[in-house]
Amino acid sequence: MAKQYNVAVVGATGMVGMAMRQILEERDFPVAELRLLASVRSRGKRLPYRGEELEVQVLDEDSFQGIELALFSAGGGISRQFAPIAVQAGAVVIDNSSAFRMDEDVPLVVPEVNPEDIPKHRGIIANPNCSTIQMVVALAPLHRLWRLRKVIVSTYQGVTGAGLEAGGELADQSFAMLRGERRRAEVFPHTIAFNVIPHIGPFDQTGFTVEETKLTNETKKIMGDETIMVVATAVRVPVFRGHSEAVHAEFDLVADPALARDVLASSPGVEIVDDVGRARYPMPLDAAGRDLTYVGRIRRDPSCDRALCMWIVSDNLRKGAALNAVQIAEGLG
Amino acid sequence: MAKQYNVAVVGATGMVGMAMRQILEERDFPVAELRLLASVRSRGKRLPYRGEELEVQVLDEDSFQGIELALFSAGGGISRQFAPIAVQAGAVVIDNSSAFRMDEDVPLVVPEVNPEDIPKHRGIIANPNCSTIQMVVALAPLHRLWRLRKVIVSTYQGVTGAGLEAGGELADQSFAMLRGERRRAEVFPHTIAFNVIPHIGPFDQTGFTVEETKLTNETKKIMGDETIMVVATAVRVPVFRGHSEAVHAEFDLVADPALARDVLASSPGVEIVDDVGRARYPMPLDAAGRDLTYVGRIRRDPSCDRALCMWIVSDNLRKGAALNAVQIAEGLG
Repeated sequence: MAKQYNVAVVGATGMVGMAMRQILEERDFPVAELRLLASVRSRGKRLPYRGEELEVQVLDEDSFQGIELALFSAGGGISRQFAPIAVQAGAVVIDNSSAFRMDEDVPLVVPEVNPEDIPKHRGIIANPNCSTIQMVVALAPLHRLWRLRKVIVSTYQGVTGAGLEAGGELADQSFAMLRGERRRAEVFPHTIAFNVIPHIGPFDQTGFTVEETKLTNETKKIMGDETIMVVATAVRVPVFRGHSEAVHAEFDLVADPALARDVLASSPGVEIVDDVGRARYPMPLDAAGRDLTYVGRIRRDPSCDRALCMWIVSDNLRKGAALNAVQIAEGLG
Repeated sequence: MAKQYNVAVVGATGMVGMAMRQILEERDFPVAELRLLASVRSRGKRLPYRGEELEVQVLDEDSFQGIELALFSAGGGISRQFAPIAVQAGAVVIDNSSAFRMDEDVPLVVPEVNPEDIPKHRGIIANPNCSTIQMVVALAPLHRLWRLRKVIVSTYQGVTGAGLEAGGELADQSFAMLRGERRRAEVFPHTIAFNVIPHIGPFDQTGFTVEETKLTNETKKIMGDETIMVVATAVRVPVFRGHSEAVHAEFDLVADPALARDVLASSPGVEIVDDVGRARYPMPLDAAGRDLTYVGRIRRDPSCDRALCMWIVSDNLRKGAALNAVQIAEGLG
């Protein structure tokens, strides 16, 4: 990429926006100008980038003049309002919200899985939900081998998926409870310290949460296969960073754990951490701040030779959000 | 029960042993003499019971003279060595270890599920594993309705399942990490504070842990049906007390969430907590110190009308261990 891009980050002061800035720098993305955009609350804030300090600008309708690439991570409402304006101004938008993910003319991309969908965009490319990204990175190579029929997944999701204040709430509540006190829950519907909460996002009529139906619908779209069934239970756990998933994957053909390990070991974006004799398996404390999707505990369902169990962990802010968005941008070529 | 029993608690200073003593008192179990037995490390320790202080005695071969009921919770090795001695001395043993659970002539009992197996004992009755007990309490009534075919379960297990030191390790590590420090893991194979560990008990050749195969084998034995398939992933989470389970249950017949709720609401030992519109579902912080198995998030698998998802929570020290043992004793009648 000889070309350099004028890049805007919308939601630059949020957790994902901060990771985007860091990852653009780490990966030496060809940035001509970096424009940090946020709400009026962050006006005047200065953030480091390549040894300089950039001043955060207030997002408005004129923010995208001259911008060629806009990375959005400021919630669905902001994306719905400003992504079309950015496209109008000539930018390609990579949107981390759920606003456009299921739109037919918006590609939903995990570069390790469906890079061929990137060029199909009409201005907007959607970044999938964090818990979906790591699951499809690990399952797509096996789908190609044996054809995925059904996935039953239970998640163990870190609090940073819920934004900046969530980490503070976990820390404050933990300190308080260790002293025998209690703190009111504000970010989460209940106390998250030393608890687990089976509730991420609003519930729909069928009793599933939006977080759970995202896993179902986004997996089908990214894999390009409407026949894959995904049934999810999404659970918040008192972990700062990193999402873990216990996955039961049923295929059309007989599946083999050793072959799964071999194939995944040479698949892009995956690292196998699977040596149970030495107590080696992925964990969120190890995945935090790292870039890959870590897969372990791969074993055959003893009652079905077409099914495997596996344990999938990744950093929800990096591969689950900011890194995947930057990788999409790199794929624009 | 007009009769009064001479009762021994083996492992009286452990977490389950302490809960046993508390539950015998709470439920007004007809105790003539209570003999608290433990290892030499606890010699001379005094523990309260019904307003008195009882001195802990060192377990030896003569400990069971005159004892009619012996509640064991001191690990498999102690049970294997001393349960036969207690039986020889005329006691009925209710054993919380895994030593005898799969023995053909030892009943494995959850009183809400298979009370009819209690009288079949030849001196020893086994108490199932904590994660199995709460699952079968919730699934047995549905098995009777629709016949259970396959269960896929992911657990979220509190640390007190690993003994007295485990709670201290979680607290110490949490404090340290909140101050930016680290503490060595001693009870668990890795840091448990702000982490999740997909490893409970040793691994077998198939890649499953003993905790996971217990869920499979014990469920079949308690339900009296070798055809039920159970595939488990057992995960330790940074919760002090209470185990949670995300369960996908497939039946032979079409299953209905509303009927499941009705049937479970009137089933022994179950409380339905399932009002997602008001953010009501079971959580370990709410279940800790309570006696029932709490069930919520009941919903149909959208891809299979014979399958339900549900979320099952209970206190692992009470229903998962001490309470179930005392309920078995009450059933001896």
